Amino acid sequence: MTIEATQKKILLVGAGAVGSIYGWRLQQAGCSVSVVCRSNYKVVKESGFQIDSTFYGKDSFKPNAVFSSCKQAAEELPEGYDFILVCTKILPDILNPAIILKDCAVNEKSTIVLIQNGIGIEKYYAEMFPSNKLITSIAHVFTKQVKTGVISQVDQASLIFNVFKQNPDQIISEEENIILEEFKDFLTRGKVNAKIEENIQRERWVKIVWNISISPVSVLTVGSNTRELLDCPETRNLLLESMHEAIRVGEAVINKPLTDTPSTELPKQILDKVDNLPEPFYPSMMIDMQNKRPMEIQVIVKNVIDYANNLNINVPILQTMYALLALIQKKNLNN
Amino acid sequence: MTIEATQKKILLVGAGAVGSIYGWRLQQAGCSVSVVCRSNYKVVKESGFQIDSTFYGKDSFKPNAVFSSCKQAAEELPEGYDFILVCTKILPDILNPAIILKDCAVNEKSTIVLIQNGIGIEKYYAEMFPSNKLITSIAHVFTKQVKTGVISQVDQASLIFNVFKQNPDQIISEEENIILEEFKDFLTRGKVNAKIEENIQRERWVKIVWNISISPVSVLTVGSNTRELLDCPETRNLLLESMHEAIRVGEAVINKPLTDTPSTELPKQILDKVDNLPEPFYPSMMIDMQNKRPMEIQVIVKNVIDYANNLNINVPILQTMYALLALIQKKNLNN
Repeated sequence: MTIEATQKKILLVGAGAVGSIYGWRLQQAGCSVSVVCRSNYKVVKESGFQIDSTFYGKDSFKPNAVFSSCKQAAEELPEGYDFILVCTKILPDILNPAIILKDCAVNEKSTIVLIQNGIGIEKYYAEMFPSNKLITSIAHVFTKQVKTGVISQVDQASLIFNVFKQNPDQIISEEENIILEEFKDFLTRGKVNAKIEENIQRERWVKIVWNISISPVSVLTVGSNTRELLDCPETRNLLLESMHEAIRVGEAVINKPLTDTPSTELPKQILDKVDNLPEPFYPSMMIDMQNKRPMEIQVIVKNVIDYANNLNINVPILQTMYALLALIQKKNLNN
Repeated sequence: MTIEATQKKILLVGAGAVGSIYGWRLQQAGCSVSVVCRSNYKVVKESGFQIDSTFYGKDSFKPNAVFSSCKQAAEELPEGYDFILVCTKILPDILNPAIILKDCAVNEKSTIVLIQNGIGIEKYYAEMFPSNKLITSIAHVFTKQVKTGVISQVDQASLIFNVFKQNPDQIISEEENIILEEFKDFLTRGKVNAKIEENIQRERWVKIVWNISISPVSVLTVGSNTRELLDCPETRNLLLESMHEAIRVGEAVINKPLTDTPSTELPKQILDKVDNLPEPFYPSMMIDMQNKRPMEIQVIVKNVIDYANNLNINVPILQTMYALLALIQKKNLNN
């Protein structure tokens, strides 16, 4: 590859715990990385991010530019950015998530990269920016912002991704392939475990199986961590059963098994992984609940239920948990 | 009737908001009413209950004796009480509820009267006191202890009841009939709307349909009142669906419809009633959760699920809510 990373302008929208890690690694690879911050704007503008990573080491990540809004980022670079990484929470029940990019100087050359959780999240961006390339990705990274601008992170970050196609049979163009390879190359140079995944939606479903079970059960049990969830026989079983429901929907949507593990075994395998984590954790949905911030219940739970309803698949557990979450969300947003 | 109410000794075990109202009315009828208090012992011993009732008026209820334990009550009257009214919370997942009566001087003449919620609660007492008469009842009374020893109550209290028979085909004896009529007479003299109900288990199921839906949904939505539950379309629908599950189980157990209303209509009818209450309310299970006290999840939820499992009836909504409640209970009891 002869691509000059230094020529590439990346805009990171939503520079929290996840976004800052990928932005940092891309800057390490030689890209110019500007960030749009919200709650941490003042601190990051002044002194950047302090990152403590067991895998990458300790470092201070100073973005090439720090903006408080997408509008400001657009004014600074009117010709537009090559990649716009969207790492915000995604809350379509509150606001069309693509609206955030309206002021971003998204132009023809900009590739939008979604580093966000959930099912059915791409349509909002595809509809608003039909002529832009759109990459959808699954991040695996254990990271948290321990205080404003201070990030603690463990293990090697990974990103699996591909171009989003409304119709999965649509062919990826040569131009899109070049961009995918280019993006993978930047990530790899930044020591992120990067992979172009042929069936990216399948990976989304695998991640949702985990998210759709652990996150709601944690929220709905007055905020429980993974150790508490697994040590209680009733909630352990609830996790398994809710995973089975999600797997049935996912397999029907993508029309193949979600993993090489038989689907009857997959939930148990996932719980075994959680069992063996060095430390219990609280899902971000639980943290959001405790802080009375909006939770990603639409893209993590409701969109899956909508698929199930369209396919006539019964998901009573998911529906029960969603109804409970919906009222909690409503109360949190009204307060 | 020529029964002398004044000769009748009644012991009330668990003199909270519900127990104090029935004790008060029985004393008004002429019975001698002694109470075993726990958290409110000191206040009640000193000055009795202050009751403000929109139906019965304002009064001070001074029990004939106030005890801090069943043992004390037994020592005071070694020949035993005629009626022992059990009005405590019922928590068989924590302790066999009948154990509380072990020290109560339950002798042959004592009739045990359960004024407690839930399904399958009688077996604990029937097993421990096989030779005693056992009356099981459903209380309808809107009452709360606004502060220690101070009770606020609205509407006429009612009590429907009958002798408990392990086998519903078992005939009620002449002696039992006399006691039932006697008890009804005392209540009626105390202006409680009293009714001997042929199919008492059917009434228990009607009440559980209400309890098994509204109580868990309130607890699991960070403590919501009935207005909040009904105004949110998702939880309103969840209430309806969880009631349908409970009705299916109840109809299978008692082998007939729960009410004259068609079972397809019953949940909507119950919600209409809740909709039309003068004020929204918080179920006692929610109050217990907020105070980190044990909740009656075994007798209100789990025993229904056990019936469903034995009858091969699917109750995924109830099971989901129970699993969530089970972990909350566990955490509350460990703290």
